Amino acid sequence: MKRAYNFNAGPSALPLPVLQKAQQDMIDYKGTGMSIMEMSHRSSTFEEVLNGAKEDLRSLMNIPDTHEVVFLQGGASLQFSMIPMNFLGTNQIGAYVLTGSWSEKALKEAQKLGQTTVIGSSKENNYRSIPTQNELHLPQQDVAYVHITSNNTIYGTQWHHFPSFGETDLIADMSSDILCRNIDVSKFSLIYAGAQKNLGPSGVTVAIVKKDLLSRIPAGLSTILNYETHVKNNSLYHTPPTFSIYMLSLVLEWVKEQGGLDAIEKQNEKKASMLYECMDMYGDFYTPHADKDSRSLMNVTFTLPDKDRTTSFLQLAEEKGFVGLSGHRSVGGCRASIYNAVPIETCEALVSFMEAFYKEQ
Amino acid sequence: MKRAYNFNAGPSALPLPVLQKAQQDMIDYKGTGMSIMEMSHRSSTFEEVLNGAKEDLRSLMNIPDTHEVVFLQGGASLQFSMIPMNFLGTNQIGAYVLTGSWSEKALKEAQKLGQTTVIGSSKENNYRSIPTQNELHLPQQDVAYVHITSNNTIYGTQWHHFPSFGETDLIADMSSDILCRNIDVSKFSLIYAGAQKNLGPSGVTVAIVKKDLLSRIPAGLSTILNYETHVKNNSLYHTPPTFSIYMLSLVLEWVKEQGGLDAIEKQNEKKASMLYECMDMYGDFYTPHADKDSRSLMNVTFTLPDKDRTTSFLQLAEEKGFVGLSGHRSVGGCRASIYNAVPIETCEALVSFMEAFYKEQ
Repeated sequence: MKRAYNFNAGPSALPLPVLQKAQQDMIDYKGTGMSIMEMSHRSSTFEEVLNGAKEDLRSLMNIPDTHEVVFLQGGASLQFSMIPMNFLGTNQIGAYVLTGSWSEKALKEAQKLGQTTVIGSSKENNYRSIPTQNELHLPQQDVAYVHITSNNTIYGTQWHHFPSFGETDLIADMSSDILCRNIDVSKFSLIYAGAQKNLGPSGVTVAIVKKDLLSRIPAGLSTILNYETHVKNNSLYHTPPTFSIYMLSLVLEWVKEQGGLDAIEKQNEKKASMLYECMDMYGDFYTPHADKDSRSLMNVTFTLPDKDRTTSFLQLAEEKGFVGLSGHRSVGGCRASIYNAVPIETCEALVSFMEAFYKEQ
Repeated sequence: MKRAYNFNAGPSALPLPVLQKAQQDMIDYKGTGMSIMEMSHRSSTFEEVLNGAKEDLRSLMNIPDTHEVVFLQGGASLQFSMIPMNFLGTNQIGAYVLTGSWSEKALKEAQKLGQTTVIGSSKENNYRSIPTQNELHLPQQDVAYVHITSNNTIYGTQWHHFPSFGETDLIADMSSDILCRNIDVSKFSLIYAGAQKNLGPSGVTVAIVKKDLLSRIPAGLSTILNYETHVKNNSLYHTPPTFSIYMLSLVLEWVKEQGGLDAIEKQNEKKASMLYECMDMYGDFYTPHADKDSRSLMNVTFTLPDKDRTTSFLQLAEEKGFVGLSGHRSVGGCRASIYNAVPIETCEALVSFMEAFYKEQ
């Protein structure tokens, strides 16, 4: 069986050993005579899986004791609403930095629920870049939090230096680059991520929340939309997406086996460099969308000189077994999503293909 | 490999052929070189799975064109909040019938969001029964909807005759008995169900919503919490739980292969009768919690004469390979959940065990 060259933007490639383990466990998990999907979420067997995933995430990301880890549902899209519901007080203002479509969506949902302001945006340059710290200024109001999107899947940009705003809480949507590198979790009051890029299949959302923040949650909030509910109940207030959490646990074990985030980060840099170097080499032909200092390690976006060549590039790529190279429907062009689970060989195959395609023009 | 006698209350038993199919497809779905989990939710391959599941559910349940089917996240617990957010107008009142813990939870969340009233409850008899139509009276106010829980997993009761309130919309939480029998969907304005009993693994929630109802959704509601968002986007507004939907599609195919709901209903009646008859036979020893006319086809709850014998019954059962027979932590006793996927042989094994245990006393 030949594996596809999978560059899907999410849901996306999973590590082959993870899929093999899931396949092996499918009907009989650890001699129980049941699939992990057939077990109570309150069974000791499942709680072990859940707690293992939590502990592995804590140790891989070096999450300090000041922060809690919860597994939720609804993806980043539900977080866009839960954040203002929980943390945007009546007389406060939520400060948003716009670096792409996902930050725009986060802002739009916050606007429905309270006061907001945009403290930085690269919209005018078509989201080619990430604002620098000195371009970002907090307003003279009571700022509830600053919200950023750490990686922008559609535009292919990524924050390489996170901003800091003193005592003001920093919240980051890390859906598309969590676990791609080492970060200092203590700088963030809330990190959240839909799993379907670096963490596992879709259906589970990870939130890493600073305990201090929980005291700000207003009374009367819907139980399920309150972060504290999930913290207090170890993510078992209601039935969690047990199989997705199990898959997450396998992915985290795989990351550990790779050597943790140091090794993963090096590998990701190698994969991304390979592609960006190819583009820089043939810069008149392949043009990266992102400015050099804002390039993403996860989503490499680029265009060809014209629409016809883009179309024939994508068609030929598909014939050769490359999957998911079309740019997002909102921007066009091409995009190679090279999340943690995309093997280096897959990136090498793409570079060879790009070189060959260039030379045939 | 021996399969467990799985009586888990949810997540619960899945049909063995479904698990085998999922195992077979795990690494290479239909020759794509990818798992279904590794594919874009916007790929034609996944859309086929999603649309297939939708169509199969429509045909199995005979869902009229007046109703839409959507796949959501967050389980019944999120529905408890979404229902009042979407359909409980400012000057309206939500009418709830209490038949167990889940209806209490649904009510509690509605109370946070608007005016409510309880139009019927069997709480005073420890939820042994389901109210009859003539015990239920609407108040002289503008009633937004009547909410019922069609099956009560914890107490083991089930509605066998659904109430009707003229033009007033009827909403039912069918998490634990959807697809267990034929029902007339047209009588309901909204049916919702977490998948983890009769539909598949946890992580996906099915909602069947009458189109008329959508016009009542207030402006300004969070996008992700608005039913219309999901209707308009064919459940693809954001990344859905793709693997759970795939599993749901396999379960629905399996239900079709069994002969649809007519056959499933007969099988469920047979399974439930077997257990209830055993209890009625040894009525001085095994006492069903539910009144005879309110007994559930899905969750058979019963007690033994005292705590010691309950404990030894449960211990011995566990040794013999029976899983999930403890009653819910809130009520104690015993419970056998016999959802669609629990084979008749598993029920027969339990009956034999109960007979043998009785005779040894």
